[in-house]
Amino acid sequence: MTNATDYQNIFREIVSEFKIADDCGEVATYIPELGKVDPEKLGIHLTTVQKFHYSFGDSNDKFSIQSIAKVLSLTLALKIMGKDIWKRVGVEPSGSAFNSLVQLEYEKGIPRNPFINAGAIVICDILVTCLNNPKLELLEFIRKTSGVESIDYSSKIADSEKLTGFRNYALTYFMKDFGNIYNEVEPVLDLYFHLCSIEMSCKELAQAFLFLASGGVNPITNETVISPRRTKRINSIMQMCGFYDEAGEFAFRTGLPGKSGVGGGIVAIHPGKYSIAVWSPKLNINGNSYKGMKVLEAVTTKTMSSIF
Amino acid sequence: MTNATDYQNIFREIVSEFKIADDCGEVATYIPELGKVDPEKLGIHLTTVQKFHYSFGDSNDKFSIQSIAKVLSLTLALKIMGKDIWKRVGVEPSGSAFNSLVQLEYEKGIPRNPFINAGAIVICDILVTCLNNPKLELLEFIRKTSGVESIDYSSKIADSEKLTGFRNYALTYFMKDFGNIYNEVEPVLDLYFHLCSIEMSCKELAQAFLFLASGGVNPITNETVISPRRTKRINSIMQMCGFYDEAGEFAFRTGLPGKSGVGGGIVAIHPGKYSIAVWSPKLNINGNSYKGMKVLEAVTTKTMSSIF
Amino acid sequence: MTNATDYQNIFREIVSEFKIADDCGEVATYIPELGKVDPEKLGIHLTTVQKFHYSFGDSNDKFSIQSIAKVLSLTLALKIMGKDIWKRVGVEPSGSAFNSLVQLEYEKGIPRNPFINAGAIVICDILVTCLNNPKLELLEFIRKTSGVESIDYSSKIADSEKLTGFRNYALTYFMKDFGNIYNEVEPVLDLYFHLCSIEMSCKELAQAFLFLASGGVNPITNETVISPRRTKRINSIMQMCGFYDEAGEFAFRTGLPGKSGVGGGIVAIHPGKYSIAVWSPKLNINGNSYKGMKVLEAVTTKTMSSIF
Amino acid sequence: MTNATDYQNIFREIVSEFKIADDCGEVATYIPELGKVDPEKLGIHLTTVQKFHYSFGDSNDKFSIQSIAKVLSLTLALKIMGKDIWKRVGVEPSGSAFNSLVQLEYEKGIPRNPFINAGAIVICDILVTCLNNPKLELLEFIRKTSGVESIDYSSKIADSEKLTGFRNYALTYFMKDFGNIYNEVEPVLDLYFHLCSIEMSCKELAQAFLFLASGGVNPITNETVISPRRTKRINSIMQMCGFYDEAGEFAFRTGLPGKSGVGGGIVAIHPGKYSIAVWSPKLNINGNSYKGMKVLEAVTTKTMSSIF
Repeated sequence: MTNATDYQNIFREIVSEFKIADDCGEVATYIPELGKVDPEKLGIHLTTVQKFHYSFGDSNDKFSIQSIAKVLSLTLALKIMGKDIWKRVGVEPSGSAFNSLVQLEYEKGIPRNPFINAGAIVICDILVTCLNNPKLELLEFIRKTSGVESIDYSSKIADSEKLTGFRNYALTYFMKDFGNIYNEVEPVLDLYFHLCSIEMSCKELAQAFLFLASGGVNPITNETVISPRRTKRINSIMQMCGFYDEAGEFAFRTGLPGKSGVGGGIVAIHPGKYSIAVWSPKLNINGNSYKGMKVLEAVTTKTMSSIF
Repeated sequence: MTNATDYQNIFREIVSEFKIADDCGEVATYIPELGKVDPEKLGIHLTTVQKFHYSFGDSNDKFSIQSIAKVLSLTLALKIMGKDIWKRVGVEPSGSAFNSLVQLEYEKGIPRNPFINAGAIVICDILVTCLNNPKLELLEFIRKTSGVESIDYSSKIADSEKLTGFRNYALTYFMKDFGNIYNEVEPVLDLYFHLCSIEMSCKELAQAFLFLASGGVNPITNETVISPRRTKRINSIMQMCGFYDEAGEFAFRTGLPGKSGVGGGIVAIHPGKYSIAVWSPKLNINGNSYKGMKVLEAVTTKTMSSIF
Repeated sequence: MTNATDYQNIFREIVSEFKIADDCGEVATYIPELGKVDPEKLGIHLTTVQKFHYSFGDSNDKFSIQSIAKVLSLTLALKIMGKDIWKRVGVEPSGSAFNSLVQLEYEKGIPRNPFINAGAIVICDILVTCLNNPKLELLEFIRKTSGVESIDYSSKIADSEKLTGFRNYALTYFMKDFGNIYNEVEPVLDLYFHLCSIEMSCKELAQAFLFLASGGVNPITNETVISPRRTKRINSIMQMCGFYDEAGEFAFRTGLPGKSGVGGGIVAIHPGKYSIAVWSPKLNINGNSYKGMKVLEAVTTKTMSSIF
Repeated sequence: MTNATDYQNIFREIVSEFKIADDCGEVATYIPELGKVDPEKLGIHLTTVQKFHYSFGDSNDKFSIQSIAKVLSLTLALKIMGKDIWKRVGVEPSGSAFNSLVQLEYEKGIPRNPFINAGAIVICDILVTCLNNPKLELLEFIRKTSGVESIDYSSKIADSEKLTGFRNYALTYFMKDFGNIYNEVEPVLDLYFHLCSIEMSCKELAQAFLFLASGGVNPITNETVISPRRTKRINSIMQMCGFYDEAGEFAFRTGLPGKSGVGGGIVAIHPGKYSIAVWSPKLNINGNSYKGMKVLEAVTTKTMSSIF
């Protein structure tokens, strides 16, 4: 493991390599709001369990974290309900997106894992059942977990998601037909669309996910978020299911559990060491940040922190 | 990390706990030969990269390693052909078995990974193309990798596999229709059925897989099996795809890359530390050794060696 | 072709045979309202293009015609929009129900035919676009086509359908995601649920479908419902797609185009000769009236009116 | 129904219309032998149950009847085994080709109908079980049914089919895995490939299928091929399943049961009236003869013989 100074140098090296590198990918545009972001943005933030911070570029810019937030809603559901949630959602990778509906039918409405849309919606259904004011309480949980009070939903993004979210409605009604959605569809999807609209900076993300690098306790806030065993559970699900149809490639390249979002953000965890968040809006064909994947591969290679 | 003595004590603790534990699962019987094994067998062998050995029970009994051998054929193909093999087989988990044919059709005959049957068959096709005497050369490679000359195929098992291997014939012809099998079907499946018939003891398995714990070099034989980068690749594929429809569960419980076989064997790797092989013939409903999974979970929990 | 008297005798023969026959099947109960019907009801009504009527049993009792109504909504959409509707729904049989969602995904939201739920919903979407007051105008069309003013929706059944119609919501949102639903989901499904709730007697049904036996003109009302070519189109779709997963069996047994509903009704058409409606609430495992299928087979066998 | 003279005039009219019509489609080339045919060939032959013959163009040229032969193998299997064959193959349409494997898996190796490849292969398996010399006895049956001694297999086509028939091997092994193929794969597919290689002219085809227009008896040879009830069964299966993914369209356009082959041939039956064979090698995108479909539509329209 490298010492403190190295990270900053490594970031510099990586970024200077990128200056001359190819510049591929496309910004997500399925939601008009997402398409408005500056495609050249690049932010990196790494926080160690010893509370050292290393950052580069636009690491304090807020962006739409999208699916990365599904790790936080899962954490809250697991904290409240415990292992009973595994009766309603699995922990296995899902194969290609094409199969999602087939698989959902074949497996009687039980989504393969909490990070595919169907699974994250079931988690929202659980939260709607357990919480009095789900949107507010989820937000408070995320603020407390990260120690950042300014984290908030983007109502523009949430509205945009709702307007184009026909497939998510289809998935939800389909699972309701199988009896795996207990509440009305509207409040469940309202929570889901808000969840996906959360905006955070790289720094805030790294800080919010630091508990996963340190056995469930955020060393900055000293807040116990969740037990060590459940921390392990969440990390293993991120490892297996965090990158859509590119989980295996990411496992090889980076060797760390992580989660990406179509806003161009990626968070990765080195258990016992650090959490890192990268943001670059252009996506590869699998919907993961093109440069973000490269940065994380370079960081773990140069610091030899792959778990494999 | 625990010191040398602990492993032996840990094995003793684990096994004494099992004496009073439930005794579930069923021995695989789809091949009559497999059904003849004593269901009560239990062997454990752990070898560290410092060449210390720790073992328990029937760790020197040979058994049918079945799909565990797919890691070794992949290693040989990767050594010979390099990354070109990824044009013909993927590195992503495959979802449920039910979807395998659908997915193979949807992805035009490219199997999701080298550990599902279709993928292992493509690897055999590659070896049939590249080697003069594939069966002999594969065996020699495995003997050299492990440093154990007595490793051999079981012709009884290979014949038994062939007689009941209709689905494997179907998969192979299906991929040939897509142009992803270059040779005649018979020699490819002959190699595949022999691959699955290899017999090894826990000790031999732990030794054969030790290179994956030490950057591609077997510290016992000093043989360089494969490069560090490809070692990482193989470990990440084991992590993602090594346990059929239970990869996520295994990742959580054990936190190590590994591979199981329907003979009741499991191998797991702690990169930089050790390789471990466990054998207990009774399988859980996902086709993985019931006790083997429990032993590995107990070992990694008691030694705190989960990578998550 | 038999003469007038025969039908009445044939009905008598058939029914007396049934008295001693097995009495299989189950009344549909997925909607509570449907489960309240007397399972022993049996009605038959045959109307010839020469306007002779033959009836038996409970042929004047109103019952929930359910999916049979999809023929009438298709007729109205075809009358209004013409062949452009075939850009949005196909004319081919759909294979097993299990595949419906897969197929809908594979075929980009274009349902295979207008009688599977997805297809009937697209037809409703077309009607919602073209009509000012879709529910009222559809009802008026059906009243005019049949010459029966008393035909009406059952608001109890429509409400019941809506309360349990999660899968229909899923299908509709799924197609909307593919761009094949132009209106809001609610008004489209409101029309669909009302369509399925229509109540008619066997006599009314036979009369409403008589135009399909006489080139598009109802000989009783002299109303030209649709052109001869489109009559042929509707009959051929009924032949291919009218009986869920039992279309082939029905084609063999009865040899006539027809349509069934889960309320236990079946209508069949002998082009140039007659229309016939049968009602018996107990359904076979494919969801078609157990006795209704038997009656129609007996009628066409005894009158040698199979088209094959 | 038109009188005798009309058919000849109708053929003339239709063909003269085609002279100025578009000339679409492509000759099948997946088997090199099929690609060698003259794409401009056009033959028509109609035989009435009163034994009148009407023909046009290349109606005496032999061509590869391909899948049309599946009707004859089905007839023989039904004659020998009776309704027990329906335990091993269904009578329902199959939906899109894409789903064939999914459906075969879902329905545990029971093909949907005897005209999709999997179903025709099961029929061949039945014949291999029941006959001493399947290839010879099938050929003799076809010669006797048609009254034409010169009908024969094309060994060139059969060899060509075998060399490229990987998907058929895949299907057969897949069904064998489910227990629905009783014999070795090779003899079953040998019969299947020979079946598909049969060569006949339009005249011979019309004559061979005439029994289906006349209750199971060939009026030319006075040979009782099969019972009236089974004739009805075969006609209904042709109606539902005879045209791949265009069965519904053909039912509408032609209104007759029929069967096509990728050699460009189509046979259709007007029960009680006539059988007709058309041959034009260029295929539409669904694999059915482009002109053949047009000719049959024109014939049934001009003679008003649609059964709908």
